[in-house]
Amino acid sequence: MNIGIFGLGLIGGSLGLDLRACGHRVVGVSRRASTCQTAVAIGSVDQASVDINILGAAEVVFICTPLGFIVPTIQQLITILPKTTVLTDVGSVKTPIVEAASSLWHNFIGGHPMAGTADSGIEAALKNLFVQRPYVLTPTPATPTSSIEVVSELVKQLGSNIYYCAPEQHDRAVSWISHLPVMVSASLIASCIEETDEQVLKLAYSLASSGFRDTSRVGGGNPELGVMMAKYNRAALLKSLQQYRHNLDEIINLIEQENWQDLEEILKLTKQRRHNFVDIIG
Amino acid sequence: MNIGIFGLGLIGGSLGLDLRACGHRVVGVSRRASTCQTAVAIGSVDQASVDINILGAAEVVFICTPLGFIVPTIQQLITILPKTTVLTDVGSVKTPIVEAASSLWHNFIGGHPMAGTADSGIEAALKNLFVQRPYVLTPTPATPTSSIEVVSELVKQLGSNIYYCAPEQHDRAVSWISHLPVMVSASLIASCIEETDEQVLKLAYSLASSGFRDTSRVGGGNPELGVMMAKYNRAALLKSLQQYRHNLDEIINLIEQENWQDLEEILKLTKQRRHNFVDIIG
Repeated sequence: MNIGIFGLGLIGGSLGLDLRACGHRVVGVSRRASTCQTAVAIGSVDQASVDINILGAAEVVFICTPLGFIVPTIQQLITILPKTTVLTDVGSVKTPIVEAASSLWHNFIGGHPMAGTADSGIEAALKNLFVQRPYVLTPTPATPTSSIEVVSELVKQLGSNIYYCAPEQHDRAVSWISHLPVMVSASLIASCIEETDEQVLKLAYSLASSGFRDTSRVGGGNPELGVMMAKYNRAALLKSLQQYRHNLDEIINLIEQENWQDLEEILKLTKQRRHNFVDIIG
Repeated sequence: MNIGIFGLGLIGGSLGLDLRACGHRVVGVSRRASTCQTAVAIGSVDQASVDINILGAAEVVFICTPLGFIVPTIQQLITILPKTTVLTDVGSVKTPIVEAASSLWHNFIGGHPMAGTADSGIEAALKNLFVQRPYVLTPTPATPTSSIEVVSELVKQLGSNIYYCAPEQHDRAVSWISHLPVMVSASLIASCIEETDEQVLKLAYSLASSGFRDTSRVGGGNPELGVMMAKYNRAALLKSLQQYRHNLDEIINLIEQENWQDLEEILKLTKQRRHNFVDIIG
C-alpha cells in the first residue's frame, strides 16, 4: 500500500521502518527538512518532505504528532486528500481526538500503540518497536468497517496485540494505569521535598533505594507530557484521582485508628490483585 | 571479637558470613534447630543453638529478629549477658526500639542496615550484602562512646556507608523514602481495582506497562511488613501521609481548575528534584 506518516518522531519513524519492511511504500512529512533527511537516511521512509502535498497519493495516513497537533493536522490534510484515504492517529488520549477527527473526516479511526522508549525523535526510531505490544483501536458506531479493516491489517503486520474499545473506555483504562500513576508518583516527590529538617532531607536522599526509585520514576518524567495527559484526559483522570484519594484516606484512617487488621487486609488484597496487571507484563 | 547474632534470617545470616570473613568468631541463636544447622553448614556462624546461653561470652550481639521481637529478645538476653556486652539491632524503625532498649541496657546502640533482597531466611544469606549500602546508627546522648565505636568499627568492616543520626531523624527519613511509598503505591492498586466497568478493568490489566509496574511494586509487597512499618513508625508515617495528601490535593485542584501552567511547574520541580534522591542510588 501507499502509506503516509505525518510526524517523524520515535513512533512515526519506527512505524515507517516496520511498514517498509512489510513491503509498503512509505512517505513522510515533518516540519523540519533535517528530520526528513534523517528519516530517508535511516530507511524509515521512501520519501519525505516538509510539504504535505507529498501525501496526496497515500491510502492510509498515520498522524504521529503530539496530541495538540493531531486535529490541526487533520484540518490541513483534508484539503489535499481524496475522500477514500483512511486517517488514523497514535495519540495517547482518544475521546477528544476521535470526536473532533470523526466530524472532520469520515474515514478516521483512532489508534494508540502502547510502545516507546525513554528517547524521542527520529534518531530514536527502532525496528519491531510494536511487536507484542498493545495497539488499541477505538472505532465508533460511525466508523466505516473498511477503515477498521485496513488499519487492523497494518497493525497486525506490525506484530502488535490489537484491542478494540470505545474511545471513552480507552481513556478510562489509561487514566488508571498510566495517567494516575504519574500524578501519584509526582505527589510523592513533591511531598518528600517539603521536609523542613535539612538533616532529615539529606538523610532521605542518602537512604533512598529501589523502592523510592521505582515509586517516583514516572513522577520524574517529562513535564509537558504529564500536562498533556491531564489536559486531554481531564475527566477520566479526575475520576481516577478522586477514587485514589478515597482509598488513600481509608489507609490514613486505619493507621490513625491503629486498625492493623484491616490495614493488613488491604495490603493482602493489593499484593494479590497486582498480579492481575503485572502477570500480563511479566 | 566474639560476636553473637540473635535471629538467623537473611540479615543475621549475611552479617555472620561477612563478620566471620573478617576474622571474628560468630555464635548464633535461632528459635529453630534446623535454622541453626543450616547457618553452621553455610558458614554463617561458627556455632549455633536454640539456647540463648550460647551467647554468654559475646562482646557484641546483633539482634536480627523481626521488629516485634527485638525488645522481648533484649529482655531475655540481659538475664545472661555481662554488663560490658554491647547490644545493637537491625530494625527498620528506631524510635520505639531505642527508647525501650536503652532503658533496659546501657550499652545499646540502634542500627539499621539498609540492604536486602526479595528473599528471606537463612538460605537467602549472601556475602557482601552490606557493601556500599547505607548502615544507619542512631546513638542518643546517653549512648556510651565505646558502644558507638565498637559497632561502628564492625560496620566499617562490612564495607557499609555509615550514617549517624537521632532515632527520630532516621524514622522521619525512612517514612519519606520507604514507608510512605508503600502506602502511596498500595492506594494506587486499591483504587484501580475499584473500576466498575468490567471491560475497562480488563483493558487496564492488558495495557498496564512499565509505568504501572514500577509505581505499584512496593504496594504489592509483603503485607505483614507494611503493617509493621505503619505500627512502629506510625507518628512519622502519618505526618508524611498528611503532607502527601496535601500535595495530591494541590495537583487535583490544579487539574480541576485547568491551571496547566502551575501543574507544569510542579512536574518540572518533581523531575528536577528526583535527582537529589536518585543520583545517589544510580
